Amino acid sequence: MNEGPDTWNPFDILGHLIHGEETDWIPRARMILEHGEARAFEPFDRFAMFEKSKGKSLTDLLAEFTRLREANLQELARLNLTPKLLEKRGQHPELGVVTLSQLLSTWVVHDLGHIGQIVRVMSKQYKVAVGPWQDYLPILTR
Amino acid sequence: MNEGPDTWNPFDILGHLIHGEETDWIPRARMILEHGEARAFEPFDRFAMFEKSKGKSLTDLLAEFTRLREANLQELARLNLTPKLLEKRGQHPELGVVTLSQLLSTWVVHDLGHIGQIVRVMSKQYKVAVGPWQDYLPILTR
Repeated sequence: MNEGPDTWNPFDILGHLIHGEETDWIPRARMILEHGEARAFEPFDRFAMFEKSKGKSLTDLLAEFTRLREANLQELARLNLTPKLLEKRGQHPELGVVTLSQLLSTWVVHDLGHIGQIVRVMSKQYKVAVGPWQDYLPILTR
Repeated sequence: MNEGPDTWNPFDILGHLIHGEETDWIPRARMILEHGEARAFEPFDRFAMFEKSKGKSLTDLLAEFTRLREANLQELARLNLTPKLLEKRGQHPELGVVTLSQLLSTWVVHDLGHIGQIVRVMSKQYKVAVGPWQDYLPILTR
């Protein structure tokens, strides 16, 4: 279940988060630290997971995400970021100049946004099952 | 941080979830099993947590919620619910006749709705911090 045409279900979202761990957050942080504004980030592929997740189960994806996120958080700690480094600038292929600090804040909000999406999709499976309580549960129509 | 006047922050929400574990879901399930439609549920107090959570930390509330939820899930398992029991009816003070199955589905969606609310509130703390990525993050304006 998803939220209509061209929207994602929790399996798609998990694949998308995995692809972010592999190609977005830490690789872009390294790009900023190593090349600054001189080299633009690789554009992020929003459809890569449809191919990459094929034949995998939700349990497989959860285990893969957990492993990658743990490794990336260790990598983040090893970067020993200082307030000065956090202000370092990079080049986004569409948005232009961004800072390392903005990239890391976006990593956090990106997670939160997709958690919000997952709970909306999960709730809608219970739309009929909740009966008259439907009116008390605004997430069912968000 | 919350979402405007008369809305809740994550601390309030956690207190609300705790009060639900104590007075709503399992107590109402028991009421249906024991009294059917003959006795209406106690109305749920949506403001109880403002007093009850006073002087507690978020960590205290998390520990309290975890303990209560675990106990209630064990209690739920002990009820040995059958398809027939799930169709048993009770009396909601405002909504009228509801089934045990509807009550338990609502317990699930109620959790999901408040998780969605918590991630919306948490994200908004990063609205400025994400810089130009703001436009790519719809949760910031949900």
